[in-house]
Amino acid sequence: METKSTISRRALLGAGATVAGAAVFAAGRETSPASASRPGAYPLYGEHQPGIVTPVQNNLHFSAFDLRTSSRAEVISLLQKWTEAAERMMAGQPAGETGAIDGHPNLPPDDTGEALDLSTSNLTITFGFGPGFFTKKLGIAGQRPEALEPLPRFPLDQLVAADSGGDICVQACADDPQVAVHAIRNLTRIGFGTVAARWSQLGYGRSSSTTRSQVTPRNLMGFKDGTNNIRADDTELLDEHVWVGSDDGTAWLAGGSYLITRRANITVELWDRQKLRDQEAFIGRTKGEGGPLSGGKEFDKVQLSARRDGALAIPEDAHIRVVSPEKHRGARMLRRGYNFTNGNSDIGHLDAGLFFIGFVRDPRTNFIPVQLAMVRDDGLMEYIRFTSSAIFAAPPGISRGEYVGQSIFEA
Amino acid sequence: METKSTISRRALLGAGATVAGAAVFAAGRETSPASASRPGAYPLYGEHQPGIVTPVQNNLHFSAFDLRTSSRAEVISLLQKWTEAAERMMAGQPAGETGAIDGHPNLPPDDTGEALDLSTSNLTITFGFGPGFFTKKLGIAGQRPEALEPLPRFPLDQLVAADSGGDICVQACADDPQVAVHAIRNLTRIGFGTVAARWSQLGYGRSSSTTRSQVTPRNLMGFKDGTNNIRADDTELLDEHVWVGSDDGTAWLAGGSYLITRRANITVELWDRQKLRDQEAFIGRTKGEGGPLSGGKEFDKVQLSARRDGALAIPEDAHIRVVSPEKHRGARMLRRGYNFTNGNSDIGHLDAGLFFIGFVRDPRTNFIPVQLAMVRDDGLMEYIRFTSSAIFAAPPGISRGEYVGQSIFEA
Repeated sequence: METKSTISRRALLGAGATVAGAAVFAAGRETSPASASRPGAYPLYGEHQPGIVTPVQNNLHFSAFDLRTSSRAEVISLLQKWTEAAERMMAGQPAGETGAIDGHPNLPPDDTGEALDLSTSNLTITFGFGPGFFTKKLGIAGQRPEALEPLPRFPLDQLVAADSGGDICVQACADDPQVAVHAIRNLTRIGFGTVAARWSQLGYGRSSSTTRSQVTPRNLMGFKDGTNNIRADDTELLDEHVWVGSDDGTAWLAGGSYLITRRANITVELWDRQKLRDQEAFIGRTKGEGGPLSGGKEFDKVQLSARRDGALAIPEDAHIRVVSPEKHRGARMLRRGYNFTNGNSDIGHLDAGLFFIGFVRDPRTNFIPVQLAMVRDDGLMEYIRFTSSAIFAAPPGISRGEYVGQSIFEA
Repeated sequence: METKSTISRRALLGAGATVAGAAVFAAGRETSPASASRPGAYPLYGEHQPGIVTPVQNNLHFSAFDLRTSSRAEVISLLQKWTEAAERMMAGQPAGETGAIDGHPNLPPDDTGEALDLSTSNLTITFGFGPGFFTKKLGIAGQRPEALEPLPRFPLDQLVAADSGGDICVQACADDPQVAVHAIRNLTRIGFGTVAARWSQLGYGRSSSTTRSQVTPRNLMGFKDGTNNIRADDTELLDEHVWVGSDDGTAWLAGGSYLITRRANITVELWDRQKLRDQEAFIGRTKGEGGPLSGGKEFDKVQLSARRDGALAIPEDAHIRVVSPEKHRGARMLRRGYNFTNGNSDIGHLDAGLFFIGFVRDPRTNFIPVQLAMVRDDGLMEYIRFTSSAIFAAPPGISRGEYVGQSIFEA
């Protein structure tokens, strides 16, 4: 629990506060909460969108939307309203511009109210645009990045179509689930008629860290997850593997990233019956400490060629070998996934697993080959079914006065 | 966020700590975390089960199970194992008796591991037994309390059978969802072969308070919920309305309670389009402050007969009138529900609402008539569908050396 502030939305409101955070262009990453305008509040503005290298919050509500219009003006208007609402909510204020749920008795409140007494909870809101966004007669077909293709259907995929894809996505992360859900709900409400929610997923227990000060969290296989994730201060790695470059072919996306989601259902009942030794061999690390099976502690270097008793210490089909950068021309990604539990399946098993979120500079080099290797060669696939899949282009950050995605329309 | 301790399970383990909390029989209620054996850890033992008057934690995982055996010995054995695991997990230790996930390489770990580095998070585990538990040839048919009948099918109910009922229930509440899910998962794992999970529900943003020091939380209608809930220090009200008495006809249940769950799906999209004035009239309170429409602040007395401009200030079909104790011979309940969001429905609406949990001394007087009045007369029903329903008898607390439910088998 890392809430850095107990300032409530109502207190902010009562004080007549305005959103004061100036646009901040820090060197390659956003400001920390300490330097933001409000304690516990991140700024919407900056070189990059919030919610990518921001220290991972505890709770997620991720929603994908379908466009319900082909009016360019209507879409721009929605993006403007969304930008304003996101700015307000990230600052701990109600979503609506009249700023209150008790504004006018004869109108619906312009905020749904359930986050009114809650702290800002480090809320970040991150937007992305799917391949379909560019085919809706909005006059932006030429702006679709070449790399923004629907992901291929990978071997073993058991995708639920209604839970996959989408024209726009919004990722809301916060240290209180009610704050994240409130954000998605109010953006959905504001978008009524222009967009319709397609699918959404809640998550908890951040399964990766993006700063070195965060303890590596555990996924529902019980293992530490994200030990070698790219961190917020790995500026060079971020530029190489996460942020789209200005020479990458899509000018408006420079400073942005590709956001990929894959819902990995884990058959936890089956996993839980595997011997400890086998579980560790599947992952390639010890379960308690998280050290690589080649020896050492959690953060010690993974020695893929190390042998024990003649055999590879980290087996041929171990997860950390199959997806390791060494196997993929050095390709890496920034992972920001969450654990999920969606109740029980029809056969009484827990409907649970990992909602993978990855940010990459280019899915063709940094994600697709790695995912392909995983579904083909990773022993873990015995315990995993991918049931949802989506890709979006997450634009760069914006300055005050701009709206999210503006660079697409003004490119 | 009220985590009172950052002591981790791993730290506890490393210190070779044992569960030290002595059985505590406080006057009508359990001890506070401050006086428990570990900071942030509640004791399993006491006059009443934990998780009833315990200050409501932020997160819920509730699971119902079907019995898969008619062996009395097997069921008793499971209840013993569950009691031991619950004691350990509430004390911040792993579920299994070897106390570690890295105990024996050739066995499955006796804890699934995902809570290993997390704090106790005020975890409470509460057990209940449904009507079906007493019909399974366990030799306890005579112990079924007369009031423990499946709830009637109420008008407008749209129950999903697979999400309703159950022979046993376990309510896990904690200030970290991963800790609550970990508890349910490990009890499910331990019960494999004896019980099978039937359905489960996650919740967040406690929708009621059980202590006066907790701010009244808001439900997904955006209103404060639980203003007049029974609190932990309302000893007389608890004895009158919540705890089963020793003269109530079922000796083994004295000091226990009936646990009722009702999943209320809210059509939030429809609700959000109602005028503020109408929303407040549906509830009977103001949305911002939560004061009754009869006037005053949140905790001021509700004046059902007050009139404004000739009409009732609190309308005839307002929620707080329809379910008020005054309308039901003074009948009250202790509410301990949670908000939930289960992603999106097939038509793209948020699948969200209130997972009601109520504890009552007698469902025939304190719940059924109130629910019947609600579904018949409450204007709110325009925005609510009940999709899950269940009832359980939650036995009294136990002393060290006893197992949960022991009084049923030794009655």
